[in-house]
Amino acid sequence: MSLVLAVNAGSSSLKISLFRRTADNAANPALLLSSSTSSIFAPPAKFKFSFVAPQHRSLNEVVDSIHDHASAFRHFLDRLKEEASIDPIDIKHIAHRVVHGGDYISPVIISEESYHHIKRLSDLAPLHNGSALSVIESAIKALPHAKSIAFFDSAFHKDLPIHVATYAINQQVAQERGLKKYGFHGLSYAFILQAVAAHLNKAPDTVNIIALHIGSGASMCAIRNGQSIDTSMGLTPLSGLPGATRAGDIDGSLIFHYTSRSPARMSHDPSISKEVKVTEAEDILNFKSGWKALTGTADFKEITEKADMGTLSDATDPNTLAFRIMLDRILHFAGAYHLALHGDVDALVFAGGVGERSAELRRAVGEAAACLGFAVIDETKNGQVNDEEGIIVDIGSGDGRKRMLVCHTDEQLEMARECSLANEFWV
Amino acid sequence: MSLVLAVNAGSSSLKISLFRRTADNAANPALLLSSSTSSIFAPPAKFKFSFVAPQHRSLNEVVDSIHDHASAFRHFLDRLKEEASIDPIDIKHIAHRVVHGGDYISPVIISEESYHHIKRLSDLAPLHNGSALSVIESAIKALPHAKSIAFFDSAFHKDLPIHVATYAINQQVAQERGLKKYGFHGLSYAFILQAVAAHLNKAPDTVNIIALHIGSGASMCAIRNGQSIDTSMGLTPLSGLPGATRAGDIDGSLIFHYTSRSPARMSHDPSISKEVKVTEAEDILNFKSGWKALTGTADFKEITEKADMGTLSDATDPNTLAFRIMLDRILHFAGAYHLALHGDVDALVFAGGVGERSAELRRAVGEAAACLGFAVIDETKNGQVNDEEGIIVDIGSGDGRKRMLVCHTDEQLEMARECSLANEFWV
Repeated sequence: MSLVLAVNAGSSSLKISLFRRTADNAANPALLLSSSTSSIFAPPAKFKFSFVAPQHRSLNEVVDSIHDHASAFRHFLDRLKEEASIDPIDIKHIAHRVVHGGDYISPVIISEESYHHIKRLSDLAPLHNGSALSVIESAIKALPHAKSIAFFDSAFHKDLPIHVATYAINQQVAQERGLKKYGFHGLSYAFILQAVAAHLNKAPDTVNIIALHIGSGASMCAIRNGQSIDTSMGLTPLSGLPGATRAGDIDGSLIFHYTSRSPARMSHDPSISKEVKVTEAEDILNFKSGWKALTGTADFKEITEKADMGTLSDATDPNTLAFRIMLDRILHFAGAYHLALHGDVDALVFAGGVGERSAELRRAVGEAAACLGFAVIDETKNGQVNDEEGIIVDIGSGDGRKRMLVCHTDEQLEMARECSLANEFWV
Repeated sequence: MSLVLAVNAGSSSLKISLFRRTADNAANPALLLSSSTSSIFAPPAKFKFSFVAPQHRSLNEVVDSIHDHASAFRHFLDRLKEEASIDPIDIKHIAHRVVHGGDYISPVIISEESYHHIKRLSDLAPLHNGSALSVIESAIKALPHAKSIAFFDSAFHKDLPIHVATYAINQQVAQERGLKKYGFHGLSYAFILQAVAAHLNKAPDTVNIIALHIGSGASMCAIRNGQSIDTSMGLTPLSGLPGATRAGDIDGSLIFHYTSRSPARMSHDPSISKEVKVTEAEDILNFKSGWKALTGTADFKEITEKADMGTLSDATDPNTLAFRIMLDRILHFAGAYHLALHGDVDALVFAGGVGERSAELRRAVGEAAACLGFAVIDETKNGQVNDEEGIIVDIGSGDGRKRMLVCHTDEQLEMARECSLANEFWV
């Protein structure tokens, strides 16, 4: 039996899916079961374990012994033996999602060397690579016979044009330190691209889309002929769209004014301004900003429910303001990417937790985008996205213009498929 | 005689124009003479003094005694007496361009109180307000009978929607410290708006344009019904488009990696990363970046001449790369603002030193923007912009769609006009 375990470590969550690969249908690994652990750093952690057909059984439990990603992974392996009667020895490949790949542009088998390379990268993205690294360590210990393979969220953007990836800074410094636009959410974009291509019955390398991955982390991507030609995140996931706790694009000197010693005035008078370290800057801009900082909640649904969609004048209540900021920034990139694609766009695609669940956000984006020739959103379809089977739901009114789609994206399945298809991993 | 002196202090330059105001035609103050001093901080300074009709005489000199903005201003006053036989006592109003107005949303007469308020603002924008402040001081000393009035580059953007002006950060901190999008180049945008409205024979408050002010400082503005609804600069002039020495939009944590102690690796390991102050950050991002950092020259014309316009594959030579980065970022905002204006755009307008002089940049923007319904650029007209009389030159092929215009913008004239029209300054 060839089993592939796909592991997706978030900042405080761990999602794991188990697939069976068959050589004659390597492009479609079959999902056997999935698991998610949440609130890892806000104990007690919640653990869920779900079997797919034919059982459709699931297990929910609160687990006191989970206190980090490593213990969450061990708990998963325990349940795998007990509940699924699967011997971990049958797991031949473990695919790990790693956010920042630096110059790695394709998946890499974890070795002493590559592990340390990724660890060094985590200096650049410690908020993002750290949890994956700790699960990789656990996996190697627990399943030493299996190949652990890192799949990078930045890899999908490897073909960004140089002028898009280059910041207008000293290039000697930039090259020495790897300072350029990398882009992230690449496993999701790769999945979206395949799914949309299949839906449109087109070859992936002929597909042009504007893809929105909007979750607690949020980004957008312009895909032309199947390649990323621009994306909103940059050197790190900080830039671009705001997220649940992330500021998104800001003025480059804002953080210094934010952290200034004097609360009463804006200043960078050396006697008042404080020296700032990247750790403090990243903490504020990644964890203490975004729509949670604006409203008090990271739950976009709650914000949407409280927001006043009808107000035409300037809204100052926090929920309406937060909703409009997200809408404004999404439309900013939508307009920019529409022109980057020369107006030749097959579809605008919503994905991610918010993108797949917020009918209100889709409606608001759709109303604005209609002037560019995107299909008018069918509100019945838009309201029933979560009831629909299938990976892609077309929410447009079906008039054959640029489409409005929702994609139920699946980073674990994307890793399992890439892993399953890569012959070099199966020799 | 009612004379208005309009003073525009740049980082290393000083432009001054003298106008005569007549009460029965206050909207059109008549230019009497103009002057510019350049290389103030790269001595010897170059001084130019030009009379308009009927004399059309001009004086060029290298002046060793000019070493700062104050001495440049005094030299101007000397020449005014000697060459123009104008008694400074006839100057009743001095209009000063001040970049950052903070919460000042209209021109303000310099008093003890307002001077200190502007001085405090210069903590936020010391690179931008400092030179204006020193000229204001000189003007008050040399011409104590005249009213010195500050005109703010941020004021044009006073009606930015709150959701556009708000960063996705903690709003208590933001409000205490004034951390929001202000926007700049407002005197130029106000001039452009008036000029385009007159050219189109429309009321300014019905005009929708995408305005590009591209010079050594570069920004863009979306104007709907005569109001700024978005602009590319933010808290300071740093964000948005790159400029001659300015980075434009970057990842918020880039500066920390840039200044890290270790040159060999990207890191924010606390043992390697260095604490950074806003002064260092602003110095690098405002003065050591931009197209000069990419190519070695601040002269965009030289870059354009060396760039390979034909290369389709990724260009790595610095000049081609710099040109394409500017083009890419301009198109990014053009696409975004086209959507922000719901596609209902009267014209895309090029202004500023580069915008008015670079036929190549206009051509490249035009080729890309044509898919949005902008007029195809007429290359004969595009090549002859500088030979044309008049403030606005239409470089489109004249097919009545969204127009492509060039505007010879004039911040001094804009200040003189606003000053001349403001009744409260003439009581």
